[in-house]
Amino acid sequence: MVDSNAEGTSNPQQLGEFELIERINQLIIQSAGDEDNSVIRGIGDDAALVRSHSGISVLTTDAIVDGIHFRREDNRWFDLGWKCAVSNLSDIASMGAIPDHALITLGLPKNYDLESVERLYKGFIAAFREFGGAIVGGDVVSSPTSFVNIALTGHLKSNGGDNEGMTRSQAKAGDHIYVSGPLGGSAAGLELLNRSISSNVATDLINRHFRPKPRVDLGQRLLEAGVRCAMDVSDGLTGDLEKMAKVSKVGFEIQLEKVPIEPGLEALFPNVAIDMALNGGEDYELVFTGSSDVVESSALSGFNLTEIGKVVIQRDSGPLVTVLNAEGNAYEPSTKSWDHLNG
Amino acid sequence: MVDSNAEGTSNPQQLGEFELIERINQLIIQSAGDEDNSVIRGIGDDAALVRSHSGISVLTTDAIVDGIHFRREDNRWFDLGWKCAVSNLSDIASMGAIPDHALITLGLPKNYDLESVERLYKGFIAAFREFGGAIVGGDVVSSPTSFVNIALTGHLKSNGGDNEGMTRSQAKAGDHIYVSGPLGGSAAGLELLNRSISSNVATDLINRHFRPKPRVDLGQRLLEAGVRCAMDVSDGLTGDLEKMAKVSKVGFEIQLEKVPIEPGLEALFPNVAIDMALNGGEDYELVFTGSSDVVESSALSGFNLTEIGKVVIQRDSGPLVTVLNAEGNAYEPSTKSWDHLNG
Repeated sequence: MVDSNAEGTSNPQQLGEFELIERINQLIIQSAGDEDNSVIRGIGDDAALVRSHSGISVLTTDAIVDGIHFRREDNRWFDLGWKCAVSNLSDIASMGAIPDHALITLGLPKNYDLESVERLYKGFIAAFREFGGAIVGGDVVSSPTSFVNIALTGHLKSNGGDNEGMTRSQAKAGDHIYVSGPLGGSAAGLELLNRSISSNVATDLINRHFRPKPRVDLGQRLLEAGVRCAMDVSDGLTGDLEKMAKVSKVGFEIQLEKVPIEPGLEALFPNVAIDMALNGGEDYELVFTGSSDVVESSALSGFNLTEIGKVVIQRDSGPLVTVLNAEGNAYEPSTKSWDHLNG
Repeated sequence: MVDSNAEGTSNPQQLGEFELIERINQLIIQSAGDEDNSVIRGIGDDAALVRSHSGISVLTTDAIVDGIHFRREDNRWFDLGWKCAVSNLSDIASMGAIPDHALITLGLPKNYDLESVERLYKGFIAAFREFGGAIVGGDVVSSPTSFVNIALTGHLKSNGGDNEGMTRSQAKAGDHIYVSGPLGGSAAGLELLNRSISSNVATDLINRHFRPKPRVDLGQRLLEAGVRCAMDVSDGLTGDLEKMAKVSKVGFEIQLEKVPIEPGLEALFPNVAIDMALNGGEDYELVFTGSSDVVESSALSGFNLTEIGKVVIQRDSGPLVTVLNAEGNAYEPSTKSWDHLNG
């Protein structure tokens, strides 16, 4: 824990541990809706006490570290809070679950800035308010390197059956592969930011990077419709599909021309737009597999789902994921090739 | 996440992200007992999937950071894992709950040592195996500063009634104050370690520092017996009681001579043993309040519970916690006075 005897409590930007936690408490209490009566005891005790659901609990955690996942000097604390919450919410979404309760740990240097911490929390709170989930506790520790860790629980809607959620391991040869929306926007936004390019399109793409949206509602609808294999696109489509192929013991064949690319991307990055869509990551769309009967059912008609290829039998050698161009030849995506543009 | 493209995978001590997670997986799988069938999906998916209990879920989290809570160069990774697990288990114990599922985040520098990580995990696993709780997921991230974050869930045994666990806020004037075992051992152990003193007694005390035991079983028994106000002694008895007094809106009067001191402490530290017991912290005993009828009931007769004072009405001014010596005069404990011995 932050040393409560630390100097600096007289400086309004340098609260002691208890004052800081109290300040964070206030932010959370102010943000708590009256409708959430499942929190029996939130912040202020040794542990958070929450009513359990009759279904299955889901637990996830994700951490971000200064200098690795963000740069403190960029001063985008709200965005950072939003994005860290979203990365956890997206894990819950990819299981088809409903977000419940979050525990947040902050590692803060001695010279932390209170306003930054408040903006960070406002980002957490805004994301949880929009997509579900309540902050019920956490820890604040002194750390030379700033970091944030979120642990998030969720539950599956009970349907009276053996509903065990969507996992990565249930892709079956013969099924189709789908993605829930256009890809590459987040990678392009980061690139535009690094190049200090500003325009309306650039602003939209930068927002795709800093304010991604987890597909929480869609995840639940997919599960209800009968989809059993899904994950979120966090590290990049082909890399994420490789993980899915490995644990499902199948291969994937992607049709290059079917992969949906974020609007505006091809005009701005004609040479690498497709690579950004294939390898960019952090779009937080869902990629999933299933039969066309299930995925094209009326229950999912309101969503912009795109079929991008098919699940095949895993070969003894060769890549787990093959991307085929219009001529049926293998396309070799260049991993983060657009990074070179900056150099 | 740790960069999976990082160099060094050819060095057996420097695995890439996936290899490291796989290694950790193996450790966890090897440690999992056959009796735990509540984990539907542990490590390897976006989120952990666990069967929920019919009662109330409890969630807690605690982080430790290199240079603040431990020193990497001390090379006590098993102890560190044990202690970090215990600090979370102790939070669950202080609510009267049963530990369930842990998510562990590791922040590791690029030059991390694999054996250290394995020893750390063995420490986590040993503590959870002894006191309850299963590791079901986590995250590994690259970080210039090493850190560990544990989030732990638990549940309350259902008793058909309105069982909301023990909290800090339910101390009532007229009740007695109890502590579950001798205090000061952890602080003394650290002091002996810093002074490089070795003897049988020193070894015992150093073990009190590195291998504390959470009072998980006792916590549940206290709750069953009717105790409603408890917390663990993590920061030091008087400081922890101040927090309890504040939220319970009461005062505490402690009888100095009743405070149980770790055996051997008074011989080694005649001048400061009592201050170590009052302010040392990290003993992970439980401190709780209740009527003597409840606490002296036969259900609790097997535990070494010591009455140390009483709950009084909170005064408008003056300290929340008063320590009285044998003459009835206020004793002013010197906060960490033994630190001066070292200087």
